[in-house]
Amino acid sequence: MDTVNINVSGKKFTIRKSVLLRFPQTKLGRLTEKWPEYNPEENEYFFDRNPKVMLSIFDLYRTGELHLPKNVCSFTVKTELDFWQIDESLISECCWKMYTTTLKAKAVIDVIEKSLNEHPFVNREELSTRQHLWMTMEFPQHSIVSKIWFTIYMLFVSMVVIIACLYTIPQLREPLRKEDSHLASGSILDMLLKSEMKGTIYRLDLACLVFFTVELLTKFTICPEKKRFFSFGLNNLDVTLTLIMWTAVVLDHIPIVEHVHIAHTVLRAMFCLNVLRIFHLGKSSNVMKLLIFTLKASLSAFGLLLVTLTMAVVIYATLAYFAEVATKADTFSNIPIAIWWTVVTMTTVGYGDICPQSWAGYVVGVICSLSGILLIAMPIAIIASNFDAFYSNMPAAEQRIRRKCLKEIEDERLKLSYNSGAGPQTLPLKTDQYYQPTYVPTDDEL
Amino acid sequence: MDTVNINVSGKKFTIRKSVLLRFPQTKLGRLTEKWPEYNPEENEYFFDRNPKVMLSIFDLYRTGELHLPKNVCSFTVKTELDFWQIDESLISECCWKMYTTTLKAKAVIDVIEKSLNEHPFVNREELSTRQHLWMTMEFPQHSIVSKIWFTIYMLFVSMVVIIACLYTIPQLREPLRKEDSHLASGSILDMLLKSEMKGTIYRLDLACLVFFTVELLTKFTICPEKKRFFSFGLNNLDVTLTLIMWTAVVLDHIPIVEHVHIAHTVLRAMFCLNVLRIFHLGKSSNVMKLLIFTLKASLSAFGLLLVTLTMAVVIYATLAYFAEVATKADTFSNIPIAIWWTVVTMTTVGYGDICPQSWAGYVVGVICSLSGILLIAMPIAIIASNFDAFYSNMPAAEQRIRRKCLKEIEDERLKLSYNSGAGPQTLPLKTDQYYQPTYVPTDDEL
Amino acid sequence: MDTVNINVSGKKFTIRKSVLLRFPQTKLGRLTEKWPEYNPEENEYFFDRNPKVMLSIFDLYRTGELHLPKNVCSFTVKTELDFWQIDESLISECCWKMYTTTLKAKAVIDVIEKSLNEHPFVNREELSTRQHLWMTMEFPQHSIVSKIWFTIYMLFVSMVVIIACLYTIPQLREPLRKEDSHLASGSILDMLLKSEMKGTIYRLDLACLVFFTVELLTKFTICPEKKRFFSFGLNNLDVTLTLIMWTAVVLDHIPIVEHVHIAHTVLRAMFCLNVLRIFHLGKSSNVMKLLIFTLKASLSAFGLLLVTLTMAVVIYATLAYFAEVATKADTFSNIPIAIWWTVVTMTTVGYGDICPQSWAGYVVGVICSLSGILLIAMPIAIIASNFDAFYSNMPAAEQRIRRKCLKEIEDERLKLSYNSGAGPQTLPLKTDQYYQPTYVPTDDEL
Amino acid sequence: MDTVNINVSGKKFTIRKSVLLRFPQTKLGRLTEKWPEYNPEENEYFFDRNPKVMLSIFDLYRTGELHLPKNVCSFTVKTELDFWQIDESLISECCWKMYTTTLKAKAVIDVIEKSLNEHPFVNREELSTRQHLWMTMEFPQHSIVSKIWFTIYMLFVSMVVIIACLYTIPQLREPLRKEDSHLASGSILDMLLKSEMKGTIYRLDLACLVFFTVELLTKFTICPEKKRFFSFGLNNLDVTLTLIMWTAVVLDHIPIVEHVHIAHTVLRAMFCLNVLRIFHLGKSSNVMKLLIFTLKASLSAFGLLLVTLTMAVVIYATLAYFAEVATKADTFSNIPIAIWWTVVTMTTVGYGDICPQSWAGYVVGVICSLSGILLIAMPIAIIASNFDAFYSNMPAAEQRIRRKCLKEIEDERLKLSYNSGAGPQTLPLKTDQYYQPTYVPTDDEL
Repeated sequence: MDTVNINVSGKKFTIRKSVLLRFPQTKLGRLTEKWPEYNPEENEYFFDRNPKVMLSIFDLYRTGELHLPKNVCSFTVKTELDFWQIDESLISECCWKMYTTTLKAKAVIDVIEKSLNEHPFVNREELSTRQHLWMTMEFPQHSIVSKIWFTIYMLFVSMVVIIACLYTIPQLREPLRKEDSHLASGSILDMLLKSEMKGTIYRLDLACLVFFTVELLTKFTICPEKKRFFSFGLNNLDVTLTLIMWTAVVLDHIPIVEHVHIAHTVLRAMFCLNVLRIFHLGKSSNVMKLLIFTLKASLSAFGLLLVTLTMAVVIYATLAYFAEVATKADTFSNIPIAIWWTVVTMTTVGYGDICPQSWAGYVVGVICSLSGILLIAMPIAIIASNFDAFYSNMPAAEQRIRRKCLKEIEDERLKLSYNSGAGPQTLPLKTDQYYQPTYVPTDDEL
Repeated sequence: MDTVNINVSGKKFTIRKSVLLRFPQTKLGRLTEKWPEYNPEENEYFFDRNPKVMLSIFDLYRTGELHLPKNVCSFTVKTELDFWQIDESLISECCWKMYTTTLKAKAVIDVIEKSLNEHPFVNREELSTRQHLWMTMEFPQHSIVSKIWFTIYMLFVSMVVIIACLYTIPQLREPLRKEDSHLASGSILDMLLKSEMKGTIYRLDLACLVFFTVELLTKFTICPEKKRFFSFGLNNLDVTLTLIMWTAVVLDHIPIVEHVHIAHTVLRAMFCLNVLRIFHLGKSSNVMKLLIFTLKASLSAFGLLLVTLTMAVVIYATLAYFAEVATKADTFSNIPIAIWWTVVTMTTVGYGDICPQSWAGYVVGVICSLSGILLIAMPIAIIASNFDAFYSNMPAAEQRIRRKCLKEIEDERLKLSYNSGAGPQTLPLKTDQYYQPTYVPTDDEL
Repeated sequence: MDTVNINVSGKKFTIRKSVLLRFPQTKLGRLTEKWPEYNPEENEYFFDRNPKVMLSIFDLYRTGELHLPKNVCSFTVKTELDFWQIDESLISECCWKMYTTTLKAKAVIDVIEKSLNEHPFVNREELSTRQHLWMTMEFPQHSIVSKIWFTIYMLFVSMVVIIACLYTIPQLREPLRKEDSHLASGSILDMLLKSEMKGTIYRLDLACLVFFTVELLTKFTICPEKKRFFSFGLNNLDVTLTLIMWTAVVLDHIPIVEHVHIAHTVLRAMFCLNVLRIFHLGKSSNVMKLLIFTLKASLSAFGLLLVTLTMAVVIYATLAYFAEVATKADTFSNIPIAIWWTVVTMTTVGYGDICPQSWAGYVVGVICSLSGILLIAMPIAIIASNFDAFYSNMPAAEQRIRRKCLKEIEDERLKLSYNSGAGPQTLPLKTDQYYQPTYVPTDDEL
Repeated sequence: MDTVNINVSGKKFTIRKSVLLRFPQTKLGRLTEKWPEYNPEENEYFFDRNPKVMLSIFDLYRTGELHLPKNVCSFTVKTELDFWQIDESLISECCWKMYTTTLKAKAVIDVIEKSLNEHPFVNREELSTRQHLWMTMEFPQHSIVSKIWFTIYMLFVSMVVIIACLYTIPQLREPLRKEDSHLASGSILDMLLKSEMKGTIYRLDLACLVFFTVELLTKFTICPEKKRFFSFGLNNLDVTLTLIMWTAVVLDHIPIVEHVHIAHTVLRAMFCLNVLRIFHLGKSSNVMKLLIFTLKASLSAFGLLLVTLTMAVVIYATLAYFAEVATKADTFSNIPIAIWWTVVTMTTVGYGDICPQSWAGYVVGVICSLSGILLIAMPIAIIASNFDAFYSNMPAAEQRIRRKCLKEIEDERLKLSYNSGAGPQTLPLKTDQYYQPTYVPTDDEL
């Protein structure tokens, strides 16, 4: 018979030679006895490869279809396919999803790792004082001190946000002029401009302002690159808010003409913008980055959600508008307001400020709410599973960083042990000393 | 002993002969030494097959049950079962779900691929000018120009839809007669018929009308088959809307008798139907097709959802009606309105326009909302997973198209290389030049 | 060395003998050369078994832990463990979930199959006329005629339900006495008792009544067992409703004393109970049974949902009650009404009939709605996955029925072919003729 | 060639020696012919190990990457890696998730088992009377009597909770003084303090009080450790409630001065705190513990949910506040109330007590409701899957307890059979007699 014996790492396969010739561009298609892999004694070819994918590869030669084994990691498959010079695109479509799932997981891990690991490992003992100070202020995981600092900082952020919220409560404010005591009658804007905050809350706010100003100046002073400092949105927000507050406070204590007074009023009304400092809260959780990754990875699902919802909302709003066209009630008085009702119905929020009142409207409402649940469930499922992909691969990304760190230490150890001429030894691993910060300024920068 | 040695691609199996005779219709049941597969030297039968399914097949002979290995693709299993002449229906029910999952995924990929791939590959360099124009207008992925055209088109669609929505806002409309200035008192229909749109918005609408008319005429002119043109719903919608608008505009500028005036009024009121052009938005996303596939594939789940919900809704509505039968409030004044309340409760929309007011009604409300969540969660889970099946198999469908495209190029290359007598060579692949449009009119058609 | 060679269907294993003695009660623990499985030539034991589980079994002897391979069906594992006399309970807990998943799936399939397959296969050609009539009326899948009958029946059911709903609309009813024309002022019960339905709708209802009476009588006549007839809830419902309707109709046409008149009024008011005929809709979908199975299988999850929700609802209601204790508003006037609010909030229905109005109430509301989503999401996930288990195993259950049917035909064929002395042949399979009805009365019964 | 033959339990592998030297610290990297595993006859190394992971390990030597087979339990992998002295951290990140999933499942099972299994197995026949009484009162699974006791206890708990709810209904209460008959006008607190419960409900409550007092005293008497008794929250709750009730009842029957009267009134108003006895309901379901485990395991997801929601809520509330700043309506009168609206919208509760009324507000509402669904869906998915992990591994934990119990019995049996000199025998297993209670006091303690 024309069979060929192939020994892959001790596992022996037999296949007809004629079959192998069907893909002449591949390695097995060009098999010849002149190769060093040929062992004339045993009349077999010996390859030092993983034999797990061989049966699938032989099936490709036999049937022209490449179905993959499900118990082998896609990267092993890839390595073997590359070795045997078989194009990835020959993989059957039924196995494609399984094959790419692992590759995608890898890509996800890459993204996570990159975000966790933008800089080389640092040896904690080699940092300068300035670097230490910078890292204490920026990285809670740097030391005990930085953890305490972070907690204090978060307390101030929480306080300033709560105060900003309280600023908008009319009962806590005092009218600028006595004749404006009945603020409730006007609009909210009126109230904000014609009254001001006084007493303990105001003084607490000033204390927070001082704290954030000092923090901002310190950070700016020790920041190695001033340009880079302004490339972060949060820093710009801090600077803007601090300037507004200080201007308002300064205007408080100098005699002013009428014109500036208005500006002053506006500035003081903007005190409640302090609420935006809530964004600093995002620093507290590593997982916040996952949310952003998920949203990026789910852009196509988002697009789908938006396009589908827009279409459905507009159509249902038109239907509801015309269904209610004969009723006197001014609930569905125009299509935009019907769009508002449709969104409120499809998301199952259902305020009830607008309700259908005719039978035709009821029917539209029923269809609208049911199809809303359906339409939203589909992309949400994808986004939730994307999030899960990031969330469940966090440990894998950490594992890779650990592996890299280990390798670095290992390399150093090997170097040491070879230098000392003692040969490889099993030394205890110390990974605590090494870690990867998100940003370490070099001493030159500082 | 009566054992038989079977060598499947180098893997050796031993089994009692008496066991094999239990299924005499199968290949192994008819095993005889006269076959060419018999190798007398080694006293074994050699088969050039995938040995992965053999252990399961031998188990079938031994125990009468066919349990499949979980790490082998169902299509490989199918191929082997066919070769050994074993009926698919002998597969044990516990492995049936796993076995059919892959087959179903294949069917899903088939459906997606068919929709993406209705026509043969085209070589972009061989198209005529008319074909180029047609494809520029229809396929955003055709060229840079077609992408720009698509963006402009979508902008106009968005604009015309927004204008149509604004048409229904009474504040933006002017009464046709001065005595109708108090429109708010009548119904919406009254308002629509007794007032008209004027000014900038109206002129913008006319601009859009001109744009869509020109676009429609151009498309109709270059369309190869006029009949086919009208087989698309969107084209018919465009034609109808354009005709209505133009009739209304023409009637604006010619002196008319009273009768036509009413028709004119009605026509102008229909300007807000332009909102239906939103359907063009569906062209923007390839994923829209997935939604339609999902809905088709989920028909049984839909049926279940509808039947279950209908039953539950009617029963709960009757219960709520009789629970509230003694209250004076006219909230649950009849069963149909109670049905409306039940749907609003089961979908957790909860407008609050109708609320139970007696203890019996509260109990019905509690049971109704809880069972609503349950009843809806079950079919929704199926529909969401159906959608996921389509969504996650998109890349697999694209992979198959790529494979086919590759094969076409490969075949052409092989032809070339054999013709030139140079033997098979590894030439660089260029897949960019080839692609599959959804519809390419032949030049004869044009 | 003290190694033992074991040949399992051609796959050779080597293991130390001392290791095998650790579990002396098992088959391998009692291995002796006196057994017929011992082959002295090759110095090995030959077993005609599936070798896939052997490595795991050897690991049990080596390490004392039994971890299972993931690519082998649990039933194959079970068969092998039984053969080697290893107790199922030795399986490690980390593999237990995987091991039992398949066993559970089998149990699910058993339940589905039992419900689909309560009776032996029938050969359609052997039924009597009476059996044919019975099956035509009961099983839509019996023949074309039965499908038409089923459609007509469903139309009548829908009609009678819609009419029953319309019965409760006051505008369609006429007052029994002229002085009761202002029905809106009283309660719904008053309205129902003091007015009646007349005109077309009433006549349509009578037509439906006649139809259902005839249908009921026919079914009762041809029903083989009269007792069994009344063991079905739907039949009892039909009988009761029909009797009520007919009594009311008869009382309409005979002169009656005042006392009976009241009974008559009540009876006529009960016409809207016809809405309960909606339960017949459940017959239309095979999948309805799945819902019932799911609910049965999810009893523990239900219990959890109920207990958790009850506890959470009572606690939150108490909190909300005391949070609002100082407000004058009578919204949270007692704990039971606060319980209603809590359920409405936790299920995210949110009618808005009761709303917290103090800051403490807002805080309770926020915590309540968030924890409601969490608490409900957890058991719902289990119930949805239980439903999925039934839904996705439907085809497997059908596969088993098909296999059984195939086996029956096969047995018959084998009998025939052996009788004719022709030996086993591959005859075409005809499964259409055979099918399993849910209930076939024997001719003796009829 | 420099190949090495390695025989792992009968499976033969061949690999180049030079490749093995890449990891000199591992077992295979130090392979030498002096080892007892070397068999010079066959020129191979024999290892009595599981060969399933060998191919992956060889791949590590060849490519430097360690990809795991998917069909082998992670614990088998771990055992093999340990034997071959390969560090776990070398596992590739793409296989890390799969590898750790099983380890995590094991950890989950550990947690469940620990909670189910805090004490050694007890032999039911060896308990003293006091122990029997204690266990009858505490463990429903102890005996038939304890089940009946448990049912009665739960009935009393339900009754006392229902009565506590009824206590807050003004209609059922009587005013303390006749002049307070118009209670509805004041606040709820007023109503509670100025009225009291009388009649049947009050007497039923007293009966419950007697029951719970007797139960508490009995439990306290037979409790072995009095300190431990007060370490359970529920016991403390019972003691406090019972003391409050009895003080109030005693004050009822002794003549009192005005001052005590007020305390008495307050105490009687606290009768409705009996509602907290609902916590005893948690004892009824074993699955309640799962909820607590899930919440503990989901702390990071919770943190994410809280931080994200807080940020989103504050930002959206600020947006909504400023969107509605120009409207006169006092719906969005300050940011805290806007925060309430945002939470109600994002959780899709949608009471409708506060609604946006301007176009800007509508836009904020639309974005807010859609992003609310998204934001909540993501962590909820994780928490639901955590719950599923606990729920689906319950049987595995029970399996482990069963295994331990079996081993105990087996050990005892082996001891017996060896003692009797009869050698190992297959005796019938009796597991019923042994079981693990959550707490068994020793007789010394009692």
